[in-house]
Amino acid sequence: MKKIFLTPLLALSLTACSLSGTQESALRGTGDLGVIIERADGNVLIVEHSNNEILARVEGLGDLSHASVVFSRDARYGYVFGRDGGLTKIDLLKQRIDKRIIQGGNSIGGAISEDGRLIAVGNYEPGGVKVFTADTLELVADIPATALADGSKNSRVVGMTDAPGQKFMVSLFDTGEIWIIDFSDKTTSEPQITKFENIGKQPYDSMLTPEGRYYMAGLFGEDGLAMLDLWHPEKGVTRVLDGYGKGEQPLPVYKMPHLEGWTVADDKVFVPAVGRHEVLVIDQKTWQQKDRIEMIGQPVFVMARPDARQIWVNFAVPDNQYVQVIDSETAEIIKTIEPGPGVLHMEFSPRGEQIWISVRDRNEVQIWDTATLEHLYTLEADSPSGIFFTNRAHRIGL
Amino acid sequence: MKKIFLTPLLALSLTACSLSGTQESALRGTGDLGVIIERADGNVLIVEHSNNEILARVEGLGDLSHASVVFSRDARYGYVFGRDGGLTKIDLLKQRIDKRIIQGGNSIGGAISEDGRLIAVGNYEPGGVKVFTADTLELVADIPATALADGSKNSRVVGMTDAPGQKFMVSLFDTGEIWIIDFSDKTTSEPQITKFENIGKQPYDSMLTPEGRYYMAGLFGEDGLAMLDLWHPEKGVTRVLDGYGKGEQPLPVYKMPHLEGWTVADDKVFVPAVGRHEVLVIDQKTWQQKDRIEMIGQPVFVMARPDARQIWVNFAVPDNQYVQVIDSETAEIIKTIEPGPGVLHMEFSPRGEQIWISVRDRNEVQIWDTATLEHLYTLEADSPSGIFFTNRAHRIGL
Repeated sequence: MKKIFLTPLLALSLTACSLSGTQESALRGTGDLGVIIERADGNVLIVEHSNNEILARVEGLGDLSHASVVFSRDARYGYVFGRDGGLTKIDLLKQRIDKRIIQGGNSIGGAISEDGRLIAVGNYEPGGVKVFTADTLELVADIPATALADGSKNSRVVGMTDAPGQKFMVSLFDTGEIWIIDFSDKTTSEPQITKFENIGKQPYDSMLTPEGRYYMAGLFGEDGLAMLDLWHPEKGVTRVLDGYGKGEQPLPVYKMPHLEGWTVADDKVFVPAVGRHEVLVIDQKTWQQKDRIEMIGQPVFVMARPDARQIWVNFAVPDNQYVQVIDSETAEIIKTIEPGPGVLHMEFSPRGEQIWISVRDRNEVQIWDTATLEHLYTLEADSPSGIFFTNRAHRIGL
Repeated sequence: MKKIFLTPLLALSLTACSLSGTQESALRGTGDLGVIIERADGNVLIVEHSNNEILARVEGLGDLSHASVVFSRDARYGYVFGRDGGLTKIDLLKQRIDKRIIQGGNSIGGAISEDGRLIAVGNYEPGGVKVFTADTLELVADIPATALADGSKNSRVVGMTDAPGQKFMVSLFDTGEIWIIDFSDKTTSEPQITKFENIGKQPYDSMLTPEGRYYMAGLFGEDGLAMLDLWHPEKGVTRVLDGYGKGEQPLPVYKMPHLEGWTVADDKVFVPAVGRHEVLVIDQKTWQQKDRIEMIGQPVFVMARPDARQIWVNFAVPDNQYVQVIDSETAEIIKTIEPGPGVLHMEFSPRGEQIWISVRDRNEVQIWDTATLEHLYTLEADSPSGIFFTNRAHRIGL
């Protein structure tokens, strides 16, 4: 069932309508809305997953390669973090940009605080963290990263995520650090920063376990993962999965896997292997590898359905036309599907009955039924990449 | 910090304003809204937790003792299940009743389907399950419960919850059954019903584990709990926690605990003991009791903060003026607070930084900071009981 392609013009007319229309037509809930990144043209689509429709296109967001999105606690606004340092606040109801700033030179993601009041961005260039008010995007804190030994510049900042207790977590790529940036003291805008040094070479990405307890950084420069137990920061950063990473690369690594794709299901953590056609199965208690699942390609995102019954996996080139579904209990592949070339991202509906898959080279977002594993709908989009639904507003670490 | 009490009159004027006001004032996200039951007068309050405010009062919902609420997938509508068999759909944006029907004689709760299209209600009188369309509340299915041996009536239906795969779960109090009611076949409105008989005497309430895998029914008529693994229904219903229940009552039972209060945190299930001043700690793998925590009274709700770091507990009379907070890792009580007489319910903000507590006999809803464990705000409400926030729309089993 093809949906009618919504042209920018129609999108604008829709917007106009929603702004000048009756109360009736304008009022709507925001719990079923979402944003799809159209990376080629710097646009985003506003979508809704109750009727699987594109509501509008919002243009002019700059360089959206590797863009990510977080949502306000009322699920009305999306904050889009662009690779060019742009931070754009989108009004999902008025279907337009509410405010846009260039907050840094080169950014790789941000987060929204537990209380929804603060937006934090980690910057490559200049290296550091900037924190803004969520409502007006005014600067609250500008935190420089550690300077390199030669003083030439500050470390690039990666792996930004929120954490419980009004905290942000980041990793410093060039200086090998993990920081806890704590804004829990409401009497000051000055955060308390706890720095963990020598955590490993070149942390490049991170993940937070779903309840917000364990922060883990992947290391580009060596094997293993750096892990911090946020319930016991006094124990410091420990190394887990020593075999994980560089040493595991019989094949050229086409893409370092996204750690935020990691998922915990049925007491097992499912991890994309680096440079192998495998998903690794890790014991959640010991963090030791207990199994490996042969896959059709190098995994990029490894995502559990909200009920943890299935794991959906996409792949790096040259296998990025496929998606494979794993049974979380048996660790067997139950189906291999071929949405088409350039599968870049997947997002489950909040309770998991459907999954949206962006298929860049077909200019499609496909909606699949996770029970029947059948293709239901197709939405047309220009080079779609990231898909983000507003229920993330209520989740820790998303 | 007392908030101004919002009178019904002001509530109405607010409503009028929001209906006739500008687009600007009317547009709002629905991710931070909620409903508070005012059980004495059959009213509900519409609230929002970004600014901790009462937005409006909606009147005329009938008997709201033991009322519960579920939310539409767009987080705009609340469905209130009244004890008198009333099913009321509330428009949280227009701040008024969208539709109200009397669907049965005596109801004890309902659920919304995974896809958000169906509302199911379990009825005491007449015993059975009725299923309605979520948008218009038109009857989709009327499922009579098993008749009693003497044919006098049908069994009372309790423990209604949604489950993954477009399913509803119920327990039959008088005939000792658990049913899976499966609406996953989209080609028919006739559900496929799987019945498990002889599951135990008088199931009175149920809980579903957060990922939606284990359905458990508490037994009023004997010890232990009936458990069904929804990943393996072919294994049938098994009995767990044999010591749990009647046999554990050295004290008169002032109130059977709410099983939906059960919480899983840090691999432990925290369970309100029946007739004891204790919270039981159960091993999530073996379902064996591993610890018991002495409390100040008989626990009613035992609820984990979303990050699973704390467990908040309220109590039956004569100790219902207290709330105790347990450290989920050490199983020690870290604070006892006294909000006041008649603490009936608690609801965490979606990411857990605050908790709302209804204090019936003070006509207050108190908002507490879960990090500092300090009282932040008070909202006035008439005999408040249940508190429900819209992020439940995106959760399995809520």
